[in-house]
Amino acid sequence: MINQLVASIKKKQAPIVVGLDPMLDYIPEHLQKEAFEKYGETPEGAAEAIWQYNKGLIDAIADLVPAVKPQIAMYEQFGLEGVKAFQKTVNYSKEKGLIVIGDIKRGDIGSTSAAYAVGHLGKVKIGSKSYAGFDEDFATVNPYLGSDGVKPFIEVCKEEKKGIFVLVKTSNPSSGEFQDRLMDGKPLYEIVGEKVNEWGSEVMGDAYSYVGAVVGATYPEMGKVLRDIMPKAYILVPGYGAQGGTGKDLAPFFDKDGLGAIVNSSRGIIAAWKKDPYKEKFAPEGFADAARAAVLDMKEDINSAIL
Amino acid sequence: MINQLVASIKKKQAPIVVGLDPMLDYIPEHLQKEAFEKYGETPEGAAEAIWQYNKGLIDAIADLVPAVKPQIAMYEQFGLEGVKAFQKTVNYSKEKGLIVIGDIKRGDIGSTSAAYAVGHLGKVKIGSKSYAGFDEDFATVNPYLGSDGVKPFIEVCKEEKKGIFVLVKTSNPSSGEFQDRLMDGKPLYEIVGEKVNEWGSEVMGDAYSYVGAVVGATYPEMGKVLRDIMPKAYILVPGYGAQGGTGKDLAPFFDKDGLGAIVNSSRGIIAAWKKDPYKEKFAPEGFADAARAAVLDMKEDINSAIL
Repeated sequence: MINQLVASIKKKQAPIVVGLDPMLDYIPEHLQKEAFEKYGETPEGAAEAIWQYNKGLIDAIADLVPAVKPQIAMYEQFGLEGVKAFQKTVNYSKEKGLIVIGDIKRGDIGSTSAAYAVGHLGKVKIGSKSYAGFDEDFATVNPYLGSDGVKPFIEVCKEEKKGIFVLVKTSNPSSGEFQDRLMDGKPLYEIVGEKVNEWGSEVMGDAYSYVGAVVGATYPEMGKVLRDIMPKAYILVPGYGAQGGTGKDLAPFFDKDGLGAIVNSSRGIIAAWKKDPYKEKFAPEGFADAARAAVLDMKEDINSAIL
Repeated sequence: MINQLVASIKKKQAPIVVGLDPMLDYIPEHLQKEAFEKYGETPEGAAEAIWQYNKGLIDAIADLVPAVKPQIAMYEQFGLEGVKAFQKTVNYSKEKGLIVIGDIKRGDIGSTSAAYAVGHLGKVKIGSKSYAGFDEDFATVNPYLGSDGVKPFIEVCKEEKKGIFVLVKTSNPSSGEFQDRLMDGKPLYEIVGEKVNEWGSEVMGDAYSYVGAVVGATYPEMGKVLRDIMPKAYILVPGYGAQGGTGKDLAPFFDKDGLGAIVNSSRGIIAAWKKDPYKEKFAPEGFADAARAAVLDMKEDINSAIL
């Protein structure tokens, strides 16, 4: 799947992933109204609004970007109905030719991590049959529990030719609280980065490993160091746009050929219709066109910085 | 909720939580057969088998223990149908007077952590209404992202009078890979423990904080240090039994009055019917009675070590 991701990034000339993180207040009034008329102000109603919104967004951007990244928390907040909308979003994105990075940040130990891996990337055995669960193409993984927590994901990736992105240095302000602490003179994120490189060496695609890393756009100097520590890891870069990262911050995350990283934007794309400069040009009904325009602007911003 | 947990531990004289982590091969043949006859060898069938199994277990132990801890990974592995079984298990456990610790190990940043907190412990606003999602009483939280990732959970706990257990030192063999690394002469787990103490000081129940910690039974000497660093944190202790921890390892996790910690056992209880000494005494149909017997033995083992 990493090979397909790289191929699609090249083909679409867009090292960009759109974060499908639907907060209700990003969703235009008319979609909420329609959904609530049908299902009431209920979790079913919210899930329907999310689904119609995502569908519009996916249709508008599927030819421009290689991948989407639904953040499962935004679906889980609505309970079971939200999780159904997550599933529909994953399935529909794949139908439209998009690669799906499940932003699930799971991580546990041994058989428990294996269960997450099976549920999100693999197939579960039931009697004599086997079934895919949520069936994303990639998943994000939390490394706090060490190799025991990560390796079961890698096993499933090997079988299914899928991939993971391990959290190394996250984009949030307090990420340094633990991740930047020095251990034997080295920050924790470097030590995790070294492990990512080690874990990834066993599961190589053509040029990059099945094991990638998450490094926040808000920390470009660390991105540069980590790029060198993990030369074969694709870097998923959150924090562009709304969280403060800009195109010029991103060069250190990329290899010289403009590959090696994929930048996520969520709010900046999916809620573009609410923000300058798009809100002048697009009515709420044009939310999907506004997202498309924002993707095109982001593509230009990033490509001008890295190519 | 921490006050209720302490009260229930005292009343039942059992600092014990039963982990409801249903692997299909823990589930007796007859339950699988019935479920598959009804729904086929499908995710629906697996979810039905899990549900009937959990129901039997819950009925058999509800008067003995204060709490259950369903591990959501074991449900997510079956996709949406599994998540439905998780929801039913949470609801039924609460109906039976059990406190539910959702072992979800979530953790993300800002609004995303807030979404997890809302979905698992709080209520989500939909138009003019609000709804609880999965509605556990406690949840486990991964601290790798720092305060940004934990505080949104604490905010929801404050509103709902619920609680969290933050991963500090996990029970698995490779937990030391990152958690034991020295930072300024202190292992990471101590630094996280200090933060747990700080986060928890703002949300105190009567004797203990809404913010607890996870510390593995397999590391008793670290348990002792962490008990002192986090005097107000209830400690959730996994790793008893199947993972190698025994009753005598557990004393360091407890305060002098026998409070301050709650010990989890999953396989050791729910799959007791498959193991010595229970498999001699109980037929597979007696799986729930075997679980009850295993709880009584565990209670004796632990109480003899701490009281």
